Order: sequence, then C-alpha cells, then structure tokens
Amino acid sequence: MDDPREVRQQIREGKWRRPTAGLAPGFVQTNLAILPRDLAFDFLLFAQRNPKPCPVIEVTDVGSPEPKLSAPGADLRTDVPKYCIYRNGALEGEVTDLRSVWRDDLVSFLLGCSFTFESALLQAGVPVRHIEENRNVPMFISNIQCVPAGMFRGPLVVTMRPIPARLVSRAVQITGRYPGVHGSPVHVGDPAIIGIRDLAKPDFGDPVTIRPGEVPVFWACGVTPQAVAMQAKPPLMLTHAPGYMFITDLRNEELAAS
Amino acid sequence: MDDPREVRQQIREGKWRRPTAGLAPGFVQTNLAILPRDLAFDFLLFAQRNPKPCPVIEVTDVGSPEPKLSAPGADLRTDVPKYCIYRNGALEGEVTDLRSVWRDDLVSFLLGCSFTFESALLQAGVPVRHIEENRNVPMFISNIQCVPAGMFRGPLVVTMRPIPARLVSRAVQITGRYPGVHGSPVHVGDPAIIGIRDLAKPDFGDPVTIRPGEVPVFWACGVTPQAVAMQAKPPLMLTHAPGYMFITDLRNEELAAS
Repeated sequence: MDDPREVRQQIREGKWRRPTAGLAPGFVQTNLAILPRDLAFDFLLFAQRNPKPCPVIEVTDVGSPEPKLSAPGADLRTDVPKYCIYRNGALEGEVTDLRSVWRDDLVSFLLGCSFTFESALLQAGVPVRHIEENRNVPMFISNIQCVPAGMFRGPLVVTMRPIPARLVSRAVQITGRYPGVHGSPVHVGDPAIIGIRDLAKPDFGDPVTIRPGEVPVFWACGVTPQAVAMQAKPPLMLTHAPGYMFITDLRNEELAAS
Repeated sequence: MDDPREVRQQIREGKWRRPTAGLAPGFVQTNLAILPRDLAFDFLLFAQRNPKPCPVIEVTDVGSPEPKLSAPGADLRTDVPKYCIYRNGALEGEVTDLRSVWRDDLVSFLLGCSFTFESALLQAGVPVRHIEENRNVPMFISNIQCVPAGMFRGPLVVTMRPIPARLVSRAVQITGRYPGVHGSPVHVGDPAIIGIRDLAKPDFGDPVTIRPGEVPVFWACGVTPQAVAMQAKPPLMLTHAPGYMFITDLRNEELAAS
C-alpha cells in the first residue's frame, strides 16, 4: 500500500476501513471539510486569515468531488474510509460513502494535517513523544482567539510536543519550512501564557511524558477549523472521521516552502 | 511622511495626489482590487490556487471599507490617491474617491506588491536594475497558465530583474522569505522556456539593461490577478491606479515567513 492511487482504490472498493496513518508513506494526508457554497466564501476567508490552524491544500470547484490539483481522478465522496455528517452542528451519523448526501452546491476543503511535519521532525532527529508512546497527540483549547470571518469564530486549538531544549530551534526551523501543514510553532514554553492550566489534562487526545530539560512547544492544530465550523452550526457539513484522512498524490516535500 | 496613518490622512484630505513610491518607508504598500461578493469567492479561490501572483495581505468583511487587520481605522474608499473604475472589463474612469460608487456587497482584496521584496534585495546588496535606471519594472506575459477558479483564468504575468550570477542564489533566498509579496522566483534563466521572445520588448513597463554575467530572473507579478479579473469582465471592479498604492500599518518585516 505504497501508492496513493492504489490505496484510494482499495478504500473506494470498501477493502480498507481502518485509519490511514502509515498508508502511502511520504504522501500528504489531509483533513476534509465540505460545506455548502454560500458558507464557503466565509470559510475560505477564515482559512486565509488563520493560515496556521487552517493550511489550505486545495479547495475544489463548486459541486465537484474531484481534487484536480492534489489527487486528479480521486473522488472525495468515496475515497475516505469513514466520514461524519453534521447537521446544524450536531453529528447525525458516520458513513463510508457520501454519494447519497452529495449536492451540486458543495465545496470541499482539503486542509493540511500534522503527519507531514512530524515525518520531517523524525527524519531530522527531533523526537515526537506521542508517536514514541503510541498515543494521540495532546490537544488544548488555548486563549488565543482566531481572527473571525463571517459566521466563523473561536479559539485556537493547539497541539503540544515536548522538545529537548537544544532541539527547539531545529524544531522551529524544520516545521517553519512547511507552512502548508501548520508551519512553525505558535508558542514555545510556559503554557499558562496561552491559557493552558495543566499539560497532563489535554482537552482532546492523550497526555504524554515531559522529561527534565524538555520545553513544551505548541503548534496550531487542524481541529481548530472543524471546531469553529461546528460552532457556527451550518445546516450541513461533511468531514472525514478523525484519523481517517484523505490521501493525496502530493509528496510531503512538495509542501515545503517555495 | 514617515507614518502610514499620517500619509493616509493626507491622501484622504486630498493633499497628496501623486504615486506612493517612497512614502512611509518600511511599511507595506499593496495592490487593491474590489469586487462584488458573488464574485469574491471565486477570486479568493483563484488567489489561493495562485499564491505567487496573488499574495493576499487582507480581504475585508463584505461591505466594509476598513482593512481591520492591516490598517485599522483606514477607509479604502478615500485613502488611495487614485482609483480606476471598470465596468464589464472596460475602464470607465479614474477617480480620487470611491464613496459615490460604494455598495454594501463589495469585498476588498489587498494584494502584496513587489516594493517590499525589492527593499529586502537592496538591503542585502542585490542590485535592482529598474530602480538604478529609474524605470518601471519590465513585465512579460508568460506562457505559464494560472490555475483557473470559476470565471477567472489566464496567463501568469512575470517581472524580470537581471541578477549577477553569483547573487542569484541570494536573490532566491531573500525573496523566498516573503511569500506574502510574490516569494521566490518562478523561473531563472532562458526566457524562451516560458514563452518570452525578447527581453528588450516587455509587454508592460520599460526594458532595462542586462549586463554580461547577469542572469534574467523572473518573479510572479501582481498585474496577473488584475489582468485575469478584467478578462472575466465582471459587472463592476474597482482598483487602485497603477503606482497609486494603498499603504498599510504593516512593517515589511512582518511579512517575512513565520
């Protein structure tokens, strides 16, 4: 399962129903958010104003389920193993196929996820604790407010990775090379300054071990746009299910700043 | 005239009617394009798909003439010395005030201009020929097609600056730090490869001297989105007049990649 086209074919045929971590190594996996066109301008504007939590990989043409730029030939209605359907901000159900709920006015947003920059950190010898400990990354609702756009507003959700002090600078530079997947950290050090009381009690995900001499480093998190969109209670919103990402044909290195 | 707020006030009161180059040194000047809301999504999408020619500094809220993020308190209807009004793709006239044509459905786009990165090049000792020769930068319509979005499509317009061979790498790195103002070059070397026949005959602007040992280096140009928008013949489009830019409160360094 090294080729993204092959993986998507397997998913489309119902032969792969599990999370996508580790599939098609080296290729960019994305978050998926689908909204009606009349909300799409404000959502795109929200992403433009908040590029760190909302790094846009691609926005499809209105009504088209094909991400022509990042995965030509793919179908966003069938090529993700599990989807969530939200109506008025409430989860209506989880499905494996969106064809029955698809409409001609839907716009799909592919947003960068942290798999890409974590792979770059690991290759540069920067440890990623939650991967070492086989847990979900710890996520916290910070007191940093996103710049609002239309009906979309809310706090920035951040991920935390403990980094050995001597590697903090390297971690900043490596992730800074990838603005398309959250980029450089939004905060380094004292969590209290951004409204986080207890690193042992994340709002989402799992706590991880912080060793002596390590600094907590915080990156903008892709949960932010989903949380913000849900809070706005749009009549219809379709997303990937957490961990069940869309796999593009883009290589991680293609997201490096140019 | 060092403070951008003061400069805008002078412009608003009709006391400054000339081009803005050299005003409020160190502060970001931008291109301005104003479109009705029903075209704004496609135009923002075009910018998202073509970030090098269309670096978005800010998009205002629908109907609001105030760029709250980059120049709070400013009024985009009065704070530019000269505007163009286009209807159905044709120039209707030039005015110094947009208040009489303003509508509640208008969305303003502030797009990065090359003043910022040229200042960075000069500070790093990279010569900028058209400034030395006191000419307009030479611009060429390339054979590179922008990624279309909705009604917006067209070729990439590029600027050319001749760079001494030993400084090309430095020029790439310095401008690459500023993705908000066109970023790194789109092409280095042979102009024929991108469809340019004669460097002495630019499509817009003036030719400049290319000395022995210099390499022609091409950057995406902010004329692109304006040309593309005009070609789509929108019912109404308002822009700054060439050279009469909007001056923000952002410092050039704030546009550096983070």
